[in-house]
Amino acid sequence: GHELLSEERSKSNIAVDKLSLFMFGKQQIDRKQRILKILQNEKVFDKSQNYFAGRIDRFETALARAKRLRQLQVKHNWTQEDKFTANELISEPGPYGLHESMFLITLRDQGTPEQHEKFLKPAQDYEYIGCYAQTELGHGSNVRGLETTATWNAEDKTFIIHSPSLTASKWWIGSLGRTANHAVVMAQLIINGKPYGPHPFVVQIRDMKTHKPLQNVHIGDIGPKFGYNTMDNGFLLFNKFKVPHISMLARFSSVDPTTSKYLRPASPSLIYGTLTWVRSTIVLQAGGVLARGVTIATRYCAVRRQFQDRDSKDQTGENQVLNYTTVQIRLFTLLATTYALHFTGRGMMQLYEANQKKMSQDAGKASSTQRGAGPEETHSGSDLLADLHATSCGLKSLASSTAVDGLEVCRRACGGHGYSNFSGIGPWYADYLPTATWEGDNYMLTQQVARYLLKSARSVLKGNEPTNDTTYILSNFLKKSDMGAAFDILGKDEDLVAAFAWRSAFLTFEALKHRDEQKKAWNDLLVDFYRLSRAHSQYMVVKNFYEALNAPNVSDDLDTETRSLMHKLFRLYALHTLESEASEFYTSSAVTVRQIMLARTNAVMKLLEEIRPHAIKLVDAWDFPDWQMDSSLGRYDGKVYEDMFHRASELNPLNAITVDPYPNSPTLFKEDDSRQFKSKL
Amino acid sequence: GHELLSEERSKSNIAVDKLSLFMFGKQQIDRKQRILKILQNEKVFDKSQNYFAGRIDRFETALARAKRLRQLQVKHNWTQEDKFTANELISEPGPYGLHESMFLITLRDQGTPEQHEKFLKPAQDYEYIGCYAQTELGHGSNVRGLETTATWNAEDKTFIIHSPSLTASKWWIGSLGRTANHAVVMAQLIINGKPYGPHPFVVQIRDMKTHKPLQNVHIGDIGPKFGYNTMDNGFLLFNKFKVPHISMLARFSSVDPTTSKYLRPASPSLIYGTLTWVRSTIVLQAGGVLARGVTIATRYCAVRRQFQDRDSKDQTGENQVLNYTTVQIRLFTLLATTYALHFTGRGMMQLYEANQKKMSQDAGKASSTQRGAGPEETHSGSDLLADLHATSCGLKSLASSTAVDGLEVCRRACGGHGYSNFSGIGPWYADYLPTATWEGDNYMLTQQVARYLLKSARSVLKGNEPTNDTTYILSNFLKKSDMGAAFDILGKDEDLVAAFAWRSAFLTFEALKHRDEQKKAWNDLLVDFYRLSRAHSQYMVVKNFYEALNAPNVSDDLDTETRSLMHKLFRLYALHTLESEASEFYTSSAVTVRQIMLARTNAVMKLLEEIRPHAIKLVDAWDFPDWQMDSSLGRYDGKVYEDMFHRASELNPLNAITVDPYPNSPTLFKEDDSRQFKSKL
Ligand SMILES: Cc1cc2nc3c(=O)[nH]c(=O)nc-3n(C[C@H](O)[C@H](O)[C@H](O)COP(=O)(O)OP(=O)(O)OC[C@H]3O[C@@H](n4cnc5c(N)ncnc54)[C@H](O)[C@@H]3O)c2cc1C
Ligand SMILES: Cc1cc2nc3c(=O)[nH]c(=O)nc-3n(C[C@H](O)[C@H](O)[C@H](O)COP(=O)(O)OP(=O)(O)OC[C@H]3O[C@@H](n4cnc5c(N)ncnc54)[C@H](O)[C@@H]3O)c2cc1C
Repeated sequence: GHELLSEERSKSNIAVDKLSLFMFGKQQIDRKQRILKILQNEKVFDKSQNYFAGRIDRFETALARAKRLRQLQVKHNWTQEDKFTANELISEPGPYGLHESMFLITLRDQGTPEQHEKFLKPAQDYEYIGCYAQTELGHGSNVRGLETTATWNAEDKTFIIHSPSLTASKWWIGSLGRTANHAVVMAQLIINGKPYGPHPFVVQIRDMKTHKPLQNVHIGDIGPKFGYNTMDNGFLLFNKFKVPHISMLARFSSVDPTTSKYLRPASPSLIYGTLTWVRSTIVLQAGGVLARGVTIATRYCAVRRQFQDRDSKDQTGENQVLNYTTVQIRLFTLLATTYALHFTGRGMMQLYEANQKKMSQDAGKASSTQRGAGPEETHSGSDLLADLHATSCGLKSLASSTAVDGLEVCRRACGGHGYSNFSGIGPWYADYLPTATWEGDNYMLTQQVARYLLKSARSVLKGNEPTNDTTYILSNFLKKSDMGAAFDILGKDEDLVAAFAWRSAFLTFEALKHRDEQKKAWNDLLVDFYRLSRAHSQYMVVKNFYEALNAPNVSDDLDTETRSLMHKLFRLYALHTLESEASEFYTSSAVTVRQIMLARTNAVMKLLEEIRPHAIKLVDAWDFPDWQMDSSLGRYDGKVYEDMFHRASELNPLNAITVDPYPNSPTLFKEDDSRQFKSKL
Repeated sequence: GHELLSEERSKSNIAVDKLSLFMFGKQQIDRKQRILKILQNEKVFDKSQNYFAGRIDRFETALARAKRLRQLQVKHNWTQEDKFTANELISEPGPYGLHESMFLITLRDQGTPEQHEKFLKPAQDYEYIGCYAQTELGHGSNVRGLETTATWNAEDKTFIIHSPSLTASKWWIGSLGRTANHAVVMAQLIINGKPYGPHPFVVQIRDMKTHKPLQNVHIGDIGPKFGYNTMDNGFLLFNKFKVPHISMLARFSSVDPTTSKYLRPASPSLIYGTLTWVRSTIVLQAGGVLARGVTIATRYCAVRRQFQDRDSKDQTGENQVLNYTTVQIRLFTLLATTYALHFTGRGMMQLYEANQKKMSQDAGKASSTQRGAGPEETHSGSDLLADLHATSCGLKSLASSTAVDGLEVCRRACGGHGYSNFSGIGPWYADYLPTATWEGDNYMLTQQVARYLLKSARSVLKGNEPTNDTTYILSNFLKKSDMGAAFDILGKDEDLVAAFAWRSAFLTFEALKHRDEQKKAWNDLLVDFYRLSRAHSQYMVVKNFYEALNAPNVSDDLDTETRSLMHKLFRLYALHTLESEASEFYTSSAVTVRQIMLARTNAVMKLLEEIRPHAIKLVDAWDFPDWQMDSSLGRYDGKVYEDMFHRASELNPLNAITVDPYPNSPTLFKEDDSRQFKSKL
């Protein structure tokens, strides 16, 4: 079977290297090679027991790796990008994960210079190892509902951190369970009996020497999860635990230690900026996350043969399952999606950076924002950020749901072998899965998008001039809605984009009618809002993909054949999405029933056929090293079966056990040499 | 929060007991209670470490449980149903799994009386412990492509079983990896150099005393999987391994030991009967599989509160998340689906039993069937079985995909806590997942359904009278297609059923046009076939649900209020399915765009509201004991947080470990008392 992959590669003219270069740039490609070499030479990063080890062994290995990685960072003077690339190659969550992200970021963004000296420095030196403790057993999405209190005690100028109930226990906190000695704790600030809402406090939680929890602090790991088991997500309860005045991160709000007055030295818009940045990163990564599954499944389905094709002339040997159209409709549409998401992620990041620039120019102008208690206004942030905020919410929701669901489609496309962990898809899926829930649950985020679209539509209805793309497509729709639309979706790429814009605008004004004219309750509209957000986000993906392919640099960077193939991927993504959501496109009159029929039975099927010869090279361009994917099915050389067999027979500890199988014998294991397989650390 | 569940229960008049009785019957409900009591009293079945233990410990525990279960079966003289119920309550695959199913069934169905004596008897006594070894590393779906050979050796009247290549290795074989000492091996029979296709052989593979593999037999466990890790799926290679003449299961075909002639003593239709039975069982179970997830998520979402509802008058406390319509649209549509699948499973089993009766009356008449090599005819079986076969293929595919995907929807509806294994959904999902792949991959099975529908349509076009429901709806469509349809889907339940029938018939004739008139290649139609099969199967579900609710006994068994609620569930399932597949319903002119709009914005939303007060009782009626679900979130008493906390802090071995977190210290674990948590067996 494995020779099939090189045959596939010889059948396509696509210049893989050039395409990779176009997607990632030389710097990133070189960086990956450089770091990969270092990691592969370190025994502790050997992955061969990853799929076999139980939770405790995996956690132990992950800790050893986290330590070594930090040492390597110091040794090689790695930048943030270098470290990030190393983590991508290792591909497992590690016990320093939250220390290195939210803990450091929060200290940096929300601390004063004095607090940087006191907390950030030792944290950067890994003397303080921290976590970000916001979520509680009883409250996640609703941050304002947190129960942990931080009561200002003017007498001795301390805060008393307290968990008044079981549900106040911090929960899900990454790196907390076993690893961290400090935590940023979000707690309700109370001054003189008056609540001021959640604020961040830096709290030491474990002894610096013994690493045991301090007195009046109760900590533990929350137990096994669907994935993410190399991480020690933890719980944390405080029993009237005192911390000094300096513990409250004071850049945006503080308590005057002498007057006990609540102060707001700066606008908190930067905090919302952080949230937006985190979501934008999720969008940026979603294409690559999905591409791993698509790479594995596409390569395997090119090696896997099953049945002869009865209608075909060639009756020697069996058909590669990649030739079956029910396999293609699953994998090639996802292949197109990986590219669509990649370019959307790029676009999202550019938007973010443009906005950061604007923000720093406008700094100071923005007034402080009031956050409402209801879902209609969570995380609303400042007006300045509104467009970016909505875009990041909508795309985070769409992109991560698409990646999650797509990975499972890839796994299933591999038939039985997809269920083996050696496929590499299942474990990867399981670790990625929470992305659909954290940083804003993917259903809830859609309310933010709808809220923004409604607001934009109201402004357009008032006759205000368009100020950005959203208001532009809304007013364009308003102008033309009487005469109707007639988009040549099968002939012109730009008409495809326009049809997506049309549907999004149509649904926006429908929703507005329900809310503003029919006065429907917010809750009764959530399902419509979900659809609206999805529609608008799909429009943004289609638009970003289209624009990336029509940028001026493209004709220099890609040869004609590759460019034309990229346009086919664009059309496949757009037309397949359109036919999957057909009813919204009809209802809005963006397309006719006949166009959908033609899209489905002709255009999409033809695109599958045209993409088929290039499928392997198109996944190759994603440039995943075998070491990163750790997959028998996705090997670059196609040696699928040899690798499965090797892992099962040589690396599998269960095979060092001989059982007594008879029901009436009390012996279970007659022989057990399985411990010999444990990784040497 | 937990008192919310009893409040919920007090708000609905539904008689849960009566509804359970209606669904399961008294016998099954009593059986469950009786067996549950026995299991709960046995220490070995204690589940408290299930979510924590690694693969080897879990396998060891599973083996201990399998043994004890067999002892209990003997002690209490359990019937098959009793044993089956015990397995459902334990809810984990066990090492005797394939012995007790496919091994015994194959010996029984395909063995001669002499072979029953020689193989079946010791197997029933658990001296022989077996497995069913069909799939190979290189071949699963395409059974005719198997590479393992069984060459008849006339000289010493033996068969030589051989694996000619690596890909010939048996793979995925349940109970083989460590447990079985015998296997039914499917191998290509070769007599005098001529191949006769795959046949079953009973082969001893391990020594009865030492339990080590016999010489020239290479066996092992295939390694960790996405789920199913309490089972030892194995691989198996033979090096010219001799077995005696009696090893070939000879009820349907055999080799004459003196003449070396190939004989076919009986028609193999019974074998196809077994496959149909297995698929029917999957359909029967799918509702309950999904209902576990729905029960857990619905209860949790009634306990979970998050945010205040801004539009609501009551501003005390937070809203139960079950009140949000985006939660309802996910959970209540699935709740309706569980009932729809339950009654469809019932219907499927009745069809199977009716057919078995007919078969035994017609026995002998049926001619032996030729199976084609291509996908168009795999597992076609005898004509007699054609309708049953297609129904079981279509419904197996739809029902198991629906259950799998629905479970993940339930898990995600629980927000962050859904990701904890204590939710009980993730591990259950992971174990059930392969059902979408085995017993016919859910994509491939749809070709069988399409083939049958095309055949039926051709017969109807020829003017043949309808002989069953399928040909009836096809000819009804033909008669009326000129004048068109006008179904009152929002007003009349029977019109809803008719609309589903209409769409299925429309798609059938469309597909027929493509195949017979436009002569499209089979492969180019696979995507259409997939849609067709899905459409037809959804029709069957809607029809079965409708008929179950309109059966004569219903008005005796259920009070008016419960009955009306069941009709609402019916409408919710049907209308929600209809709007999710809206474009096929338009295109076939079964409904108008306006009807879909009304279904979506009015009818479905109204049904959610009407079902809301009864949601908890409707999941209660599924009658899952807490012990079975093993879920913190799904507890009957709603003590969600207490249970999460208990498991994390009291049962979690990782918390017996103290780490050294500093990057430059080589120590990883300073203290490790985690082994104390290992289950005592
Ligand atoms: C692996 C993992 C790691 C994590 N790491 C951290 C960490 O390091 N630090 C930290 O602080 N937290 C962490 N979290 C917590 C995470 O941020 C929350 O779980 C997440 O925000 C979801 O919140 P929730 O669990 O409260 O969901 P809930 O809000 O309880 O959601 C439950 C259901 O209710 C619905 N719902 C809730 N409110 C509404 C509404 N207003 N309208 C409509 N529907 C609604 C949701 O859609 C969902 O279906 C982690 C979680 C996971 C799974
Ligand atoms: C947990 C588990 C337990 C199992 N236990 C046993 C056991 O005890 N004994 C045993 O013998 N087997 C067992 N199996 C094997 C199982 O029966 C096969 O894995 C299953 O039949 C799927 O076959 P496959 O893996 O060859 O899939 P493939 O046929 O390789 O499928 C790969 C892909 O190709 C597609 N495809 C293949 N052929 C066609 C076609 N003609 N047209 C269109 N698309 C096509 C499929 O849709 C799929 O997407 C087990 C499997 C699992 C996962």
